[in-house]
Amino acid sequence: MPNTPITTDVAIIGAGPVGLFAVFQCGMMKMSCHVIDALDEVGGQLSALYPEKPIYDIPGHPTILAGELVSMLEAQAAPFRPSYHLGQQVMALQSLNGGRFKLITSKGVAIDAGAVIIAAGVGAFGPNRPPMDGIEDFEGMGPGRGVNYLVKRRDDFKGKKVVIAGGGDSAVDWAISLAELAASVQVVHRRPKFRAAPESVERMETLTAAGKIELVVPYQLAALQGSRDKLEAVVVADLDGKQRTLEADVLLPFFGLTQNIGPIAEWGLGLEHHHIAVNPGTMESNVKGVFGAGDIITYPGKLKLILMGFAEAAQAAHNARHHLHPDAAYHFEHSTSSGVPGSVK
Amino acid sequence: MPNTPITTDVAIIGAGPVGLFAVFQCGMMKMSCHVIDALDEVGGQLSALYPEKPIYDIPGHPTILAGELVSMLEAQAAPFRPSYHLGQQVMALQSLNGGRFKLITSKGVAIDAGAVIIAAGVGAFGPNRPPMDGIEDFEGMGPGRGVNYLVKRRDDFKGKKVVIAGGGDSAVDWAISLAELAASVQVVHRRPKFRAAPESVERMETLTAAGKIELVVPYQLAALQGSRDKLEAVVVADLDGKQRTLEADVLLPFFGLTQNIGPIAEWGLGLEHHHIAVNPGTMESNVKGVFGAGDIITYPGKLKLILMGFAEAAQAAHNARHHLHPDAAYHFEHSTSSGVPGSVK
Repeated sequence: MPNTPITTDVAIIGAGPVGLFAVFQCGMMKMSCHVIDALDEVGGQLSALYPEKPIYDIPGHPTILAGELVSMLEAQAAPFRPSYHLGQQVMALQSLNGGRFKLITSKGVAIDAGAVIIAAGVGAFGPNRPPMDGIEDFEGMGPGRGVNYLVKRRDDFKGKKVVIAGGGDSAVDWAISLAELAASVQVVHRRPKFRAAPESVERMETLTAAGKIELVVPYQLAALQGSRDKLEAVVVADLDGKQRTLEADVLLPFFGLTQNIGPIAEWGLGLEHHHIAVNPGTMESNVKGVFGAGDIITYPGKLKLILMGFAEAAQAAHNARHHLHPDAAYHFEHSTSSGVPGSVK
Repeated sequence: MPNTPITTDVAIIGAGPVGLFAVFQCGMMKMSCHVIDALDEVGGQLSALYPEKPIYDIPGHPTILAGELVSMLEAQAAPFRPSYHLGQQVMALQSLNGGRFKLITSKGVAIDAGAVIIAAGVGAFGPNRPPMDGIEDFEGMGPGRGVNYLVKRRDDFKGKKVVIAGGGDSAVDWAISLAELAASVQVVHRRPKFRAAPESVERMETLTAAGKIELVVPYQLAALQGSRDKLEAVVVADLDGKQRTLEADVLLPFFGLTQNIGPIAEWGLGLEHHHIAVNPGTMESNVKGVFGAGDIITYPGKLKLILMGFAEAAQAAHNARHHLHPDAAYHFEHSTSSGVPGSVK
């Protein structure tokens, strides 16, 4: 049974980069926040999928690792003392009287919020699993062993025999990156042509010519061989069914992410192609008081860039404040004037 | 007479933070840029007015000095080799055949551009000058001497007798900041009540109670006394005309900025209250191929925050590319995939 509800100004669904920045923006406007995320840590995809990848398009950061950006955003939000409810999904969102909302999480936490900002990215996400019998036996053996769906630390792959499967950016980028330190890197793709960024494909081909990478094309994954605690080989087959056996310590399948906005689809919000449709001027959904920001929303002209999500979070916070206090005139301050709690001017 | 035109993909008017980030975004989409600014250095207001002020609301920078942010943005744009034309205004913008534009600057530089992004902030700006006879004789004596309209380096005011005039955020913030190191700080305001952020006013009052600041209220500036090369005193008068003479090395009048979008008003762009009206989905003005970003534009829901300007620059660049190459499908890449010139992945 849900507990006594926690009361807050704003409930933020999603603790990825955009959700974290929404906390900061709400804080600047004197609104308290509770943040819910399905993952066990803040940062969303940046923490879970590619913490060591450099990002180049965050304004004012010529380059920053995804994990570092998350740390900076968390630090920026911290003075406003948000409460995080991690490892749980919001299962229900109900409208209450007076324009408020009740949220209930999968762990039974109940939150009574004056406004809601949904910054849930692609929703709950997970890797697409290649259809091979018994693959689950090789999952969960740990980084650099068995079947891994992501690289959290490159060093886990040092000296390993690595088989990568897929033809997109992740497959190609990690092939290039791991070629430096793995014992071997073989890339299995069902077509000879890769659909990654042309520059990256070129770099991979240079490394292939230099013997640092082997392209196993056109082949598909067929089977895994090994014991209970160790992967030994990946069996692949060409279009005629002819097989090859690739010795391997670890298989990295990069077949994209399943994206599932899950319970969000059932809250009566207007959707377009699995995205929440918002008003571009306010970031408000068709339900007054429920706003969105980041990859989960759509509006005419929307670009899926983190920095757009930041701007959308600012707009959502601004309009959430108006929903909470429709009559209050807001003395609009630049951060250089008002500072943040604990800052020294 | 204008020289032979320089040909470029995009002309960016304004080298403030938003203009600099527009260079980066255009570069990511393989468009070359020429940037024109009336000031002699990049960074706009951040460089010219408050390089040492901390900013708190740049996503991923819990705190950053305005001048540092400019350096980071300049570094982020640098790999794309923009050309800067500083110390000159764009005087004319003409439409050419084929959707291109010709710009002519006040120094006679002519630029033939495929698209234009106007990121001119508040336009050419300058301080409002208090109406006092002979004030110009005391301007230009250098930092910390005579009449200054801004504080570039606090240290220039060390040990000085400082008179500040005004009742807004700048007057109050600098009174607080300079109280630490000036010989004396007197704040002249024509009303007893200050309209700065309440927290700041409170801090100023605490410093006043402690004898670090003297509030000279309600008084107005009346006259300046001194010699050719030195300010000696500021004469102020109350509403009955009763005068006081304040010993002073430097007067800092903070009566806001004049904002003047200047020649931009004459280019046939749709304006609303001295701002360029743009389509919120594309950042395009009523003239196809002319886009805007940052404080100079307006659209429903516009917030005047630097980070909004960054997002607007991304949208403007994206749509400028479409104007240049209407038929090209764009393989939309995240920066983590494509990198920037010279980056190592």
